[in-house]
Amino acid sequence: MKWKVKPIGIDAQEPFIFLRHKDAEELAVHTGDKILIKSKNIKVVAELSLAEHLLPKGHISLPINLFNFLKKPKEVSISPLPQPKSLNLILKKMKGKVLTKKEIHSIIQDISNNSLSEAEIAYFVSAVYQNGMSMNETIYLTDAMFLTGKSLKWASKDIADKHCIGGIAGNRTTPIVVSVCAAAGVIIPKTSSRAITSAAGTADTIETLANVDLELDKLKEVVQKTGACLAWGGALGLAPADDKLIRVERLLNVDPESQLIASIMAKKLSAGSKHILIDIPYGEFAKVNLKKAKNLRRKFIRVGKYFKLNVKVVLTDGSEPIGNGVGPVLEMMDILKVLKQDSPPLDLQEKSLFLSGILLEMLGKSKKGLGYLNAKEILFSGKAYKKFNEILSAQGMKESSLKPGNYQENILSPASGKITGIDNSGVNGIARNLGCPKDVGSGIYLYKHKNQIIKKGEPLARLYSHSKDKLKEGISIFNRDCPWHIS
Amino acid sequence: MKWKVKPIGIDAQEPFIFLRHKDAEELAVHTGDKILIKSKNIKVVAELSLAEHLLPKGHISLPINLFNFLKKPKEVSISPLPQPKSLNLILKKMKGKVLTKKEIHSIIQDISNNSLSEAEIAYFVSAVYQNGMSMNETIYLTDAMFLTGKSLKWASKDIADKHCIGGIAGNRTTPIVVSVCAAAGVIIPKTSSRAITSAAGTADTIETLANVDLELDKLKEVVQKTGACLAWGGALGLAPADDKLIRVERLLNVDPESQLIASIMAKKLSAGSKHILIDIPYGEFAKVNLKKAKNLRRKFIRVGKYFKLNVKVVLTDGSEPIGNGVGPVLEMMDILKVLKQDSPPLDLQEKSLFLSGILLEMLGKSKKGLGYLNAKEILFSGKAYKKFNEILSAQGMKESSLKPGNYQENILSPASGKITGIDNSGVNGIARNLGCPKDVGSGIYLYKHKNQIIKKGEPLARLYSHSKDKLKEGISIFNRDCPWHIS
Repeated sequence: MKWKVKPIGIDAQEPFIFLRHKDAEELAVHTGDKILIKSKNIKVVAELSLAEHLLPKGHISLPINLFNFLKKPKEVSISPLPQPKSLNLILKKMKGKVLTKKEIHSIIQDISNNSLSEAEIAYFVSAVYQNGMSMNETIYLTDAMFLTGKSLKWASKDIADKHCIGGIAGNRTTPIVVSVCAAAGVIIPKTSSRAITSAAGTADTIETLANVDLELDKLKEVVQKTGACLAWGGALGLAPADDKLIRVERLLNVDPESQLIASIMAKKLSAGSKHILIDIPYGEFAKVNLKKAKNLRRKFIRVGKYFKLNVKVVLTDGSEPIGNGVGPVLEMMDILKVLKQDSPPLDLQEKSLFLSGILLEMLGKSKKGLGYLNAKEILFSGKAYKKFNEILSAQGMKESSLKPGNYQENILSPASGKITGIDNSGVNGIARNLGCPKDVGSGIYLYKHKNQIIKKGEPLARLYSHSKDKLKEGISIFNRDCPWHIS
Repeated sequence: MKWKVKPIGIDAQEPFIFLRHKDAEELAVHTGDKILIKSKNIKVVAELSLAEHLLPKGHISLPINLFNFLKKPKEVSISPLPQPKSLNLILKKMKGKVLTKKEIHSIIQDISNNSLSEAEIAYFVSAVYQNGMSMNETIYLTDAMFLTGKSLKWASKDIADKHCIGGIAGNRTTPIVVSVCAAAGVIIPKTSSRAITSAAGTADTIETLANVDLELDKLKEVVQKTGACLAWGGALGLAPADDKLIRVERLLNVDPESQLIASIMAKKLSAGSKHILIDIPYGEFAKVNLKKAKNLRRKFIRVGKYFKLNVKVVLTDGSEPIGNGVGPVLEMMDILKVLKQDSPPLDLQEKSLFLSGILLEMLGKSKKGLGYLNAKEILFSGKAYKKFNEILSAQGMKESSLKPGNYQENILSPASGKITGIDNSGVNGIARNLGCPKDVGSGIYLYKHKNQIIKKGEPLARLYSHSKDKLKEGISIFNRDCPWHIS
C-alpha cells in the first residue's frame, strides 16, 4: 500500500516518520517503533511518532532532511522493521568475542541504512572501545564501511590524499597542503569529516568560506576543473555508516582505535585515493603517546597493504596546538595568513610545507629530498593561494566576513615562567564550551606558544563566543584548568 | 523570557521541543541540541527540532506526553543545556575506574531529569555491563535511584514486598502471592516494572484487566482500602532513572548485575517496604547459574542490610517456563485459573503458594513451618480471588475480554522422546517476535512441560499473534531454534 507524503514543516536531527494514531493502530505499530520507508530504490528506517490533526487519513509526514534524502517523494511504502539481526552481533562484541567479516558487514549495513538507533550504535562503539578489534576485524570494518557507501572512480591512478588522526588544536594543514600539491599538478580529491572531539574539522573550517556539501557529480567537476577539492565527506555518502558512528562517538568524545583507522581508510578507498600520507601527532598532550603512535602506524600500513595502497605515515610533534587560531573562523584566518604570506603563523606554515614536500615526492612531482623546497616555492610564489581560491570558487563561495564571536575576553597568565606545553584537549574542550564547532566564530586565539617566556598578568589567549553565557563558562573553565603549562 | 506553548498534536517517545528556525537562531541553538525547559517547579530536558509554519513567533511546541508531564503549561522558560558533567563520569566508568558516591549520584540525577540522551545512557549501561560495579558502587547506585525519586510513607512498619529477578517465561506468581498475602492481612504495596527481556512483566499482565498507571495518591488509596496494589512502578516516579535505564537495556536485552540489584532495591526503598522476599530462578535456561545465583543472593542481602531491610532470598528451579501461558493475556488467563481453581497450572500454583508461605512467616502471619499450608487454605477458600478482584477494582477495571491474538498456529514436536528442559530465553524471544509485550494477546501457550514424554507430530505449543507476518516469523524462528529440548 502507498502512503501519501504531506510535509508539515518539521526538522529533526534523528529520522522520524509521523503517522496518525488510527493508521498506526491498523499497522500494529507503536510510538518509538522502527519503520522501513521505501521510495523508488531508496530505503530508510525511521522512528515512529504520532501526529493527530496534522495529517489526513492515509498520509504520513517526514522531517525536512529525511524528506530531502528520499528526494521529496509524493508517495512512499512503509512497513514495520523486524528486530535488526545485528543487535545480537553487537552483544557478541560486548561479550569480548571476535566478529567475522560477515558479522561486521551486517552491523555496518544496519548502521548505514538507519536500522540501528543512536543508543544501539553507542553499544557498538562502546563494545569496540572496551574490547578492541583485531587486525582482521579492523580490515573488515574498513571494507564494510567502504562497501556500504558510494565510491569515486578516476581516470588517473595517481590520486593523492592526506589525513591527520586529529587531537591537536588548530593544526589546519590540509587546506594548505591540498593547495600546494594541486598547484604542483597533484590530483587530490580531499574529503574531510567534521570535528569529532576538536573545536573544528577541516570541513567546518572550509565551510566558513565555501560550500562543502557537494554532490558526487559536483565534486568530480570541481576536481576535474582544479585538480582538487576540500569537501565534507559526510554529504557524499562515501561511507555513510562512518558519519553516524562519528556522531555517536562525539557524545562522549571517544574514538576507538580500530574505528579511527577504518573511518580514515574507508573514506580514502571510497575517494579512489592510491597514495596516502597520514599524520600522527604524538606526545603528552596529543591523542596518542609515541608507543601508540608507532602501533597505529604499523596498522595503517597493514590496512593499506591489504587494499594495495601506497601509504606513508609520519609521526609529528603533538605537544601544543599548531597555529594561533582554534575554532572554524579563527583557523581559516590562520590559513589565509599562510597562503597570502601575511604575517603567517610559522608553525602552521612549516608543518604544511613538510607534509606537502612528502606528498610531492610520493607522487613523483619532486625529486627525493627536494619536496619541501618545491612546496615552499609554490607557497611563496602565490600559486598555492591562487589554487586555493580556484578550488573554493569551484565549490561555491559563500558570502562571509570571517567574523569571530562578538563576546571576547583576554585571559591573563596566572604565573611567570617558561611555557612547557599546551594541553590540546584542554584548548579544544574550552573552545567547544565557547560554542565550537557549530558557532563558527567562537574559539580561542593563542598569543603564546611552547618554549616562550611569559610574565604573570600578560595575555595568554583571547576567547571568542557568540553567547555571553558561553563566554562566561569558557573563562571559568580556562581559569580552573588553564591548559598552558608554565614552570 | 517566557515562551507560549502551542500544542501541535505530535506524540513521540523521546522528549522533543519544537522551535521556529529564527527563534532557534536567536538562542544560538541547533537541531539536536538539548534544551532545558522549566515550568513552575518542574524541569525537563528535551531535544531541539525545528518547526516552521506550525508555530507563531515566540511560541514553542511539545509532544503530547511531555506536555502532559509538565502539567499542560501555557508558558515555559527555555535555555540551552550546558554539556552534562556526568558524561566525563560515564567515560571514567568506561575506562574501568571505580565511581564515588557523588559521581554515581550525578549520573543518576542527569538520567532522571533527561539531561542524558538514550545513546549516552547506553554508554553508561555498557560501561557497567563491561566493567561491573563494586559492592559499594551498587549500594550508591541503589541510593541514587532511590533519592532521585519520590517515595511512599506508611503508618505501619510491616510493609511486605516480593520480587523475582526474571528470566523465566510465564512465572507470573506475583498477582497470586499478593492476593494470598493481602487476604491474610499483610500490607503489600507491590509495584512492578514492565518486561525488560521477557514476553511480559507483571505490570503488562495486570494491565490486560486493570489500570496500572496509578498516581501516588491513588496508589495509597488502593492500599489503604485493600491492603495491597499491583501497580506499574514507572508511572509513580519512584525511581525515574531506573525506567530510563530499563528502556535502554531492553534494546540489547542486557541487564547488568549491579543495575538489576539497584533497580529492584531502589524501588523497594521508595515503596517503603521493610520485609522483602526475592526469588532467584537459576539453571541452564535461567538468567543465572547456581554460582551466580548464590553471589546475587549475597549481594541482595548485603544491600538490604545497608538500608536496614529484612531481606530473604530463595533460589528456585529455572529449567523451564512456569505456567502454560507466555505473553500478557495468556499469563493473565493462567493467573485466573489458579485464583478461581479452574484447572489451574499446578507449577504456577505451587510456586506461588511456596512464596506466599515464606512471606506469611516473615511477617508473622503464620507460625514457622505453617506458611505454605495457610497460603493454600486462603487460595482454596476463594479469599485470594476475592482479594484480587478487590485490588483490581480499586485500581480501576478495564473493559477487557482477554482475547489472544487472532492469528494462531500449533507447533508440532519435531521428535519423539522425553522433554529435558525448555529454553526460557528462546520462548521469550519467540513471544517477543510474535508481538509481546506490546501486542498483549500475542504469545505462546505451552502444551508440554519438562519431564513429559512426547511423540513426533504431537502439538508442543500454540503461537498467537495480532499480525500475520509476525506469526509467520515466530513459526519460522520456532522451527529453526526449537526451545524444547527432547532426547
